[in-house]
Amino acid sequence: MPIPPDAFFLDPAAGLPLQVQLRRQIIAAVTAGRFRAGEKLPSTRALARHLGVARVTVAQAFAELVSTDYLASRDRSGHYISDSIERRLEAGPPAPDTPRFDWDSQLEGRFARAQRRDRERDWRGFAYPFVYGQADPALVDHAAWRDCAMRALGRREFDSLTGDLYDADDPELVDHIARHILPRRGISAGRDEIVLTMGAQNALWLVAQVLLRPGTSCAIEDPSYPGQREILRASRARILPVPVDARGLPPDAIPPGVAAVFTTASHQCPTNSTMPLPRRKELLARAQDQGFAVVEDDYEFEMSFAGAPSPALKAIDRAGAVIYIGSFSKSVFPGVRLGYLVADPRFIAEARALRGMMLRHPPGHMQRTLAHFLSLGHYDAQANRMRNAYARRRAVMLAAIAHHGLTLASPQASGGSSLWLATPDGVDSAELAARLRPRGVLIEPGAAFYADPVQGRGFFRLAYSSITAERIPQGIAWIAQALGEIAAAGPHLPLIRP
Amino acid sequence: MPIPPDAFFLDPAAGLPLQVQLRRQIIAAVTAGRFRAGEKLPSTRALARHLGVARVTVAQAFAELVSTDYLASRDRSGHYISDSIERRLEAGPPAPDTPRFDWDSQLEGRFARAQRRDRERDWRGFAYPFVYGQADPALVDHAAWRDCAMRALGRREFDSLTGDLYDADDPELVDHIARHILPRRGISAGRDEIVLTMGAQNALWLVAQVLLRPGTSCAIEDPSYPGQREILRASRARILPVPVDARGLPPDAIPPGVAAVFTTASHQCPTNSTMPLPRRKELLARAQDQGFAVVEDDYEFEMSFAGAPSPALKAIDRAGAVIYIGSFSKSVFPGVRLGYLVADPRFIAEARALRGMMLRHPPGHMQRTLAHFLSLGHYDAQANRMRNAYARRRAVMLAAIAHHGLTLASPQASGGSSLWLATPDGVDSAELAARLRPRGVLIEPGAAFYADPVQGRGFFRLAYSSITAERIPQGIAWIAQALGEIAAAGPHLPLIRP
Repeated sequence: MPIPPDAFFLDPAAGLPLQVQLRRQIIAAVTAGRFRAGEKLPSTRALARHLGVARVTVAQAFAELVSTDYLASRDRSGHYISDSIERRLEAGPPAPDTPRFDWDSQLEGRFARAQRRDRERDWRGFAYPFVYGQADPALVDHAAWRDCAMRALGRREFDSLTGDLYDADDPELVDHIARHILPRRGISAGRDEIVLTMGAQNALWLVAQVLLRPGTSCAIEDPSYPGQREILRASRARILPVPVDARGLPPDAIPPGVAAVFTTASHQCPTNSTMPLPRRKELLARAQDQGFAVVEDDYEFEMSFAGAPSPALKAIDRAGAVIYIGSFSKSVFPGVRLGYLVADPRFIAEARALRGMMLRHPPGHMQRTLAHFLSLGHYDAQANRMRNAYARRRAVMLAAIAHHGLTLASPQASGGSSLWLATPDGVDSAELAARLRPRGVLIEPGAAFYADPVQGRGFFRLAYSSITAERIPQGIAWIAQALGEIAAAGPHLPLIRP
Repeated sequence: MPIPPDAFFLDPAAGLPLQVQLRRQIIAAVTAGRFRAGEKLPSTRALARHLGVARVTVAQAFAELVSTDYLASRDRSGHYISDSIERRLEAGPPAPDTPRFDWDSQLEGRFARAQRRDRERDWRGFAYPFVYGQADPALVDHAAWRDCAMRALGRREFDSLTGDLYDADDPELVDHIARHILPRRGISAGRDEIVLTMGAQNALWLVAQVLLRPGTSCAIEDPSYPGQREILRASRARILPVPVDARGLPPDAIPPGVAAVFTTASHQCPTNSTMPLPRRKELLARAQDQGFAVVEDDYEFEMSFAGAPSPALKAIDRAGAVIYIGSFSKSVFPGVRLGYLVADPRFIAEARALRGMMLRHPPGHMQRTLAHFLSLGHYDAQANRMRNAYARRRAVMLAAIAHHGLTLASPQASGGSSLWLATPDGVDSAELAARLRPRGVLIEPGAAFYADPVQGRGFFRLAYSSITAERIPQGIAWIAQALGEIAAAGPHLPLIRP
């Protein structure tokens, strides 16, 4: 790619001849690696015009740089960055001698410190990726998405593609959610009760920022989604973990004085338990009595292939205390970065204003493409295909788990895309994960899910959303073998098990 | 569209016959407007299978609803929501009798309160839209974008489209920014010094959250971009406005003790003044002496058609105190929702972690499409086309302004996409705007740009990014006529002019 004239500028106040300035600028760009060997410079005529200097000034600077071997001149075709330059640069640029701004004292580092580091970005390179929440090329209807994206790129959709929507959402997408998706969860909501988000992660962030402030308390399930804990920590609220049991969050264990309770009632993350209806009613009654809001993350409802459909908490929320979070990350694909909040119009107005301030709106093109994907029936077809594939994969996985004598840690009633397992006594799932990596097996150790990571060491999550049914038995066999090796290596300290 | 079986569920604990529950659910959905006249219900067989009940239960419920005229039965083709239902619903649903959750006491309303309400969402319906920051179909290369989007939808790009990238960015896009865009501003940056954002708005939000906390102080230009003030208010930092002059922000007026200074040095928003090099050097020297970070919003550098190119503050920042913000909203289109931060690696690590928590990442598809748009040269071509069109429009506008005797409020040296005007003494630009709306003319009153809105009443912004050159003279004529009418209506209180 040729280097454009725009890459150059002169400083009339620099007190240096223009020709020298230009030379220094080219040398600095070459030594910093911005200009690379073989790249073509602008013509002397174009560069002189751009800089507002005489052409001879540019020509002199170029000639000088050719003589010092920074540039090479090829007859009639112009000037290029010299090929021999890379060798001379191996020593690297000299250390800067100016004082540096003291960033360490300016930054608390609280965001980077809270970051989760146990996920493998290059999971596609593993033969047995039991990773959660990624897209499977075999299940996503790429051709249908492409077709919908083409429609959303049409002439008539220019405004939704290019415009600044301020704080508005795509009306077709919101309408489809209100009329076709929420009713499946028993939820009836008007337009002023819905706001689009950049996935469930962004929805949780908005909720935390609107509801909580430093000093307020909130209750969360323990174990729970690690990203949720990061978000709540960043709000500086007090986080009170409530241990879940086989029926999810026990309402009578919620401490007094909390402003909000975060729950994954229909499909507890990561244990996959389902909260029965009496407990749901009790939770809502307590919300009314104690004055706390209930944040319901219904992140995976489309994947409930194993149990009978049960209504969302929001569906039986007559007082309007529930803030409902939905996401298209699991049923479409995570890269779509779209989800939604459903709540009282006053709450939605706040969340919408905050979203506008943070990022304006999710890209209109993604919204419109998803609206087409939904209204043309691709979403239903894809969710169906996923449910069927997941049911098959889970059956294969449960058989392999039984065959190898591994232990399920909780009832697995409603389906979903993962299982929650316990290690044999004394085995740390982080050690298991480390031992499995070289064999191409990726599992999720339990520590990240717990308020006290030690409590999670005896657990791990195995997702089947990105591994084929054919690969599952061998992957489980590797896990069983690694557990056997760890046991053979000697006794372990018993782990605390909640 | 047929109503799917998923829209229905039963509650075994409800203490009501299943047939009655099903009927109530259909009636509730119809009265709430979720099911609409003419929509087809699932077959009795499909619905019975879905709910796990006998088919006769569903058939009985349907028969009952046909007799009460909620449903209509068409021979052999099934059941439909009755056409006569809409007439019966005119009275609306009854008022709920349950106590409601007390949202008013839970919400501070601080985000919605801070929201800007002076922008017209339907600006496309106006004949003379002097609106800022929107895309012009005549200048955006829609066909090229479409072509790039098609590439980004190809089979080989499945992962960048669908995957959860955790906190990573598209490497091709970052590489292009580092090698081809930043050098034009004199900036040299490595990959660990760049993070992508959802436009400049999101970049400012990230910066404010990382740098500021309740109680810390920051200095901003006055007037300045209204969205920036909203963001800083939300961080609960102390905001100290510093009046700008014809050369932008005066460094010696920055109050002591600030943690950060926000500036639009190259192209002050909204006055369009350019900070000269000596002042830039003084600002950076003070940053080093007083220990504040400098946040440089270089939001429109591609549109500098009128002046010679000058380096960014970041280009001469040897201490590493500058956080640089770039955006593709102006040079590509605002709906792309992509921008970037360039700063010290420690700062970028914090901003990246925070972005991951807030929203993970901008959609991979938008990132990859933009990477193609840049690397295929469409960005350069489009920015060029915009610069040429803006130069022409501005010339037409300046001629019309001179012809009608309107007043420019500041020197307009470097180009851009708008002019900053002053009203004749005593005229409030909000009144002017209100008078112009019925004539199809949209202008931006100055109040929103000032820390003290009263100070902005004597100013207004006229952008030429979304109005054709042909329309400009008549639009300016309307403005002059409206000012004449206001003057004729009588004397006005003199406005404070900074």
